[in-house]
Amino acid sequence: MPLPKSFTQLINNLSILPGVGEKTAERYAYALCQKDKDEVENLADSLINFKKTIRNCEICGCLSDENICDICSDENRDKKTICIVEDSKSVFFIEKTKKYNGCFHVINGLISPIDGINPEDLNIHTLLNRVENEVKEVIFALNPSIEGEVTSLYIQKLLEKYNLKISRLSYGIPMGGEIEYLDPLMISKALEDRKVIS
Amino acid sequence: MPLPKSFTQLINNLSILPGVGEKTAERYAYALCQKDKDEVENLADSLINFKKTIRNCEICGCLSDENICDICSDENRDKKTICIVEDSKSVFFIEKTKKYNGCFHVINGLISPIDGINPEDLNIHTLLNRVENEVKEVIFALNPSIEGEVTSLYIQKLLEKYNLKISRLSYGIPMGGEIEYLDPLMISKALEDRKVIS
Repeated sequence: MPLPKSFTQLINNLSILPGVGEKTAERYAYALCQKDKDEVENLADSLINFKKTIRNCEICGCLSDENICDICSDENRDKKTICIVEDSKSVFFIEKTKKYNGCFHVINGLISPIDGINPEDLNIHTLLNRVENEVKEVIFALNPSIEGEVTSLYIQKLLEKYNLKISRLSYGIPMGGEIEYLDPLMISKALEDRKVIS
Repeated sequence: MPLPKSFTQLINNLSILPGVGEKTAERYAYALCQKDKDEVENLADSLINFKKTIRNCEICGCLSDENICDICSDENRDKKTICIVEDSKSVFFIEKTKKYNGCFHVINGLISPIDGINPEDLNIHTLLNRVENEVKEVIFALNPSIEGEVTSLYIQKLLEKYNLKISRLSYGIPMGGEIEYLDPLMISKALEDRKVIS
């Protein structure tokens, strides 16, 4: 006997989740058999509601339930400082630190010609509109990968003509890390970015 | 800025899946942002349809889209042989072998007083109604654990008064296994169940 049709349909549809293959989807489906109807319906409702509600902020591109996200519409945030990040995940991650009061700009990816991602595929042009106005500093918080460096350089070139302070997160040894286990590249970066303490 | 509300709701609801904590749910939610609206709606629909459709077969207790499952309603299956399994997963697993043409009986769990699972919580009474009629052989295919043995012994006692052939899957060394890596219990079981070959 093959699996019931409603069961295989669910397994197929669960496979759109990242890292979920047939085996995991099957495990999820068996577990959902045991769950209350309400719980499963809530999950289905929140999936539909999520897809209907979630959008990108018209100013910074961050995920939001509204057209303008909470940060861009917050009068108390410093609109003169923009932190450039790869994706919305980075925004929420940096927000957790509670140490940054500026705004963000989500470029939604990194330049990577090998994967067919060119500058025009990213949310960069809206950044230029933003910096034309009141912005004083742009902080790069992209991943320290080749793609991150390339993207950062590309945007820096575009920003040259504006009178801006441009910075990036410091590279260095991670807190709690042990120097002997770090790779030479990281140590050389930490040397370059060394901080005068007296 | 906290995560958008529709996002946190989805994360909370995804956590009903087994082994999915906040981190994994968050990963799933970010991935669902990138998916087409149709794909996510299909997933939501299949969740609702699944929960509405899936039920336990009235005869054997196996998961099915109908009141009577495909095996119990199949005229070509041998109704005189019943294989007793712990859950529907075992049914579909044994079916994959294509070596068994009898019927099944899903008892939906194993006796385990320590977890508060007593015989009356399992689907055992309907088995007795079934064996009263035309059944000739009952095969136990429960897990070779303490709970499996206890459950098997309990049901055997109940079946004593019927004139039945009672068997269980053979214990032994797994195909492809290496004897030196097996534990002594498994080897002693394989010795007990040894098969005469000439």
